[in-house]
Amino acid sequence: MKRIFLKVAYDGTNYCGWQKQNNGVAVESVINNALSELLGTEISIIGASRTDAGVHALGNIAVFDTDSRIPGEKFAYALNQRLPEDIVIQESKEVAPEFHPRYCECNKTYVYRVLNCKFPIPMERLYAYFLYYDIDVDKMQEAAQYLVGTHDFASFCSVNAQVKSTVRTVNYIKVTRKKDMLYGEHDIISIEINGNGFLYNMVRIISGTLLQVGMGRMDIKEVKDILDAADRSKSGPTAPARGLSLVQINYL
Amino acid sequence: MKRIFLKVAYDGTNYCGWQKQNNGVAVESVINNALSELLGTEISIIGASRTDAGVHALGNIAVFDTDSRIPGEKFAYALNQRLPEDIVIQESKEVAPEFHPRYCECNKTYVYRVLNCKFPIPMERLYAYFLYYDIDVDKMQEAAQYLVGTHDFASFCSVNAQVKSTVRTVNYIKVTRKKDMLYGEHDIISIEINGNGFLYNMVRIISGTLLQVGMGRMDIKEVKDILDAADRSKSGPTAPARGLSLVQINYL
Repeated sequence: MKRIFLKVAYDGTNYCGWQKQNNGVAVESVINNALSELLGTEISIIGASRTDAGVHALGNIAVFDTDSRIPGEKFAYALNQRLPEDIVIQESKEVAPEFHPRYCECNKTYVYRVLNCKFPIPMERLYAYFLYYDIDVDKMQEAAQYLVGTHDFASFCSVNAQVKSTVRTVNYIKVTRKKDMLYGEHDIISIEINGNGFLYNMVRIISGTLLQVGMGRMDIKEVKDILDAADRSKSGPTAPARGLSLVQINYL
Repeated sequence: MKRIFLKVAYDGTNYCGWQKQNNGVAVESVINNALSELLGTEISIIGASRTDAGVHALGNIAVFDTDSRIPGEKFAYALNQRLPEDIVIQESKEVAPEFHPRYCECNKTYVYRVLNCKFPIPMERLYAYFLYYDIDVDKMQEAAQYLVGTHDFASFCSVNAQVKSTVRTVNYIKVTRKKDMLYGEHDIISIEINGNGFLYNMVRIISGTLLQVGMGRMDIKEVKDILDAADRSKSGPTAPARGLSLVQINYL
């Protein structure tokens, strides 16, 4: 038996999320089906991050065990031929059998994208949250620094999440304004967050809260008060799923 | 009666192109329906560029005549409320009644985008042509310069096009390699072409030909021979529609 590691990119638009649910097709189910077909036996991958419906990924990680003679690095090619265009394996390799994508230490990078201009660009409608308000990125960046470090992030966790501890470590947050990806004519605000683990909806609630600051609806220092309160009702709205992408997971 | 000018952005993926056809929904039909509904009378817009199925636009131009009392600049807001998310009016204004989007002198800017990396990114599948080959952008840029100026572009025109003259003026072509729009991890090759008019499929045939040069399948100087031959069978393949966007039309 060997353990195969997959780096998975997907457009989350047409899926109910990474994990199997009753209300749609899951990314993991599509990969399980492709793998089972390829190997002629039932395969269930173990994923690193259970992204929500509509959330995208460039580098989610999954593993599975097989005694197939296909070399680890060839699985990407074999699987991509069987996967739909909106799910693409970016890398495959053999890893140690004890490697577990959820229990091994890692840090994750998410990017939340906001399209900030007068009218939306159709090509961005599934990959960015459109806001036409004036947004002060420097204020967002300043407010974000209260969240860097090890804190109780209960204010930035969906109330229906069931976790033992709401303490997490955020390594950095960078809020930047760039020209848009497609033609360089429109502004994209990018909120890049790296941490050692995230609570349910944490990046989207942080993004929604920082955007309140950027739009001048919340003072910079309120973000510290919200963090200290450890109360979800104090923070801003959960920003829409489509703006969020899981960019990378680094195992330490 | 006044004439209203519309700057139209659209994701061409779900349309049979700008113009009404028998095989799908046209962008102009969707706008005509929204306008007719808004104004309570049948409206037919006149478009500047008849983009093909799958081709995108940030700034196609259209006009229509109305005696409505809605101020010109308000049509963008009123129409966007009635249009699907993949068609967005970027600007509206009143123009002189003699302004005609096809007969007035202008130059147009198109961008052809190629995603150049090992495996495709799902979020780019509808907005870029994926190629994993090594591509030499400097060679493409050099070859492109043969096409700048006023030439007979018969070699770069679909054989089924019916036009009086195949002479056109290309003002500039810029081929550049940039980091991808979404996350800056993947390479996008951008072929930006500006000219005073384009033949049917001209930008896609130029792009397909320059890519042959970039991949080393065609010499730089062959592009001059192809231009001189005035024969479509000499040039490269028509690059896929999804990589192409009509970015801007400037009226002089």
